Amino acid sequence: MKEGRILIVSGPSGVGKGTVLKEVMKNHPNMRFSVSATTRAPRPGEIDGVHYRFLDKPCFEDLIARDALLEYAGYADNYYGTPAEPVLESIAKGESVILEIEVKGALQVMSRRKDAISIFIAPPSYAELRRRLYARGDTAPEVAEKRLKIAVEECSHAHEYQYIVVNDTVEQAVKEFEAILLAESCRSEYNPINLKEEL
Amino acid sequence: MKEGRILIVSGPSGVGKGTVLKEVMKNHPNMRFSVSATTRAPRPGEIDGVHYRFLDKPCFEDLIARDALLEYAGYADNYYGTPAEPVLESIAKGESVILEIEVKGALQVMSRRKDAISIFIAPPSYAELRRRLYARGDTAPEVAEKRLKIAVEECSHAHEYQYIVVNDTVEQAVKEFEAILLAESCRSEYNPINLKEEL
Repeated sequence: MKEGRILIVSGPSGVGKGTVLKEVMKNHPNMRFSVSATTRAPRPGEIDGVHYRFLDKPCFEDLIARDALLEYAGYADNYYGTPAEPVLESIAKGESVILEIEVKGALQVMSRRKDAISIFIAPPSYAELRRRLYARGDTAPEVAEKRLKIAVEECSHAHEYQYIVVNDTVEQAVKEFEAILLAESCRSEYNPINLKEEL
Repeated sequence: MKEGRILIVSGPSGVGKGTVLKEVMKNHPNMRFSVSATTRAPRPGEIDGVHYRFLDKPCFEDLIARDALLEYAGYADNYYGTPAEPVLESIAKGESVILEIEVKGALQVMSRRKDAISIFIAPPSYAELRRRLYARGDTAPEVAEKRLKIAVEECSHAHEYQYIVVNDTVEQAVKEFEAILLAESCRSEYNPINLKEEL
């Protein structure tokens, strides 16, 4: 059986990653989301194993010590990371796994897994990203502007990803995302045609 | 304006390259076929500049001397090759150019043009390729068997191409071919998003 692939997906807040990925998942039943691990406390409504795997610090540090994370980082006194084992189990079963992660973690996975597909979802323009950030009813202007500043930093790394999908319309972005998946399945190193012995 | 791309396409006789490419061309008006140059004499009905550019030997050898060919080879006392100039003119205008060429020439272009996209069109099996070769009413069995032997040699190079498209059904092969084109246009080195200065 053909192995699944690791899909690294990043993009700034407000770019519409979630909407694009939801559409893509609909057409790819054999695709999974990776669940990140974290040492921060669950927020109300968050379910262990669904939103995050909630681990205590010694447990997380043990994963670090055993080199059992595809990537990790510390933010605000807590660890966040991607345990390797569930990802590797999925791809061995032929499932592809989406890692929706920050740029820093994405670069770590790229350098560890040369076979990973990396996609940066970019806004058509910062003006449009600003519009989308403000359009979220719950976002205060100063929060939106702070996210926009972070977005500029994130987008400066877009060219370190293999692919850039500009989310102008969701329809086109989904089409491009799915074209990347199909094209990658045709890449000769992953296309195990074996006609040699057959004549 | 975005430059066009060079598309190297190879595959054994009978695999259905022509049918796949014709369908792809329908949906990509900005795509051109490269016309090969040759020193052999035109056959009845062949038009200079359409089927081939018919050149005399000194003229062809001058192209070789000036390193003005993307690839060339000698077969049966004649030269065949791809003049670089019309291809480069097309891609500068934003047109993509299909080079439907033999494996040997394809490998030459790959090594000269790292930005070329290379696609090998493979049969689903040799049994099916044999069936397709015999189904051409005009092919004698010994000719078909000879082509099949050449096909085996050609298919042994499939993994030197970036992509392998298996032509099982034309519909799926066209879908994969077009997915490769769209995915390649998203590759970050060819996707000149420039958001930096815009905020």
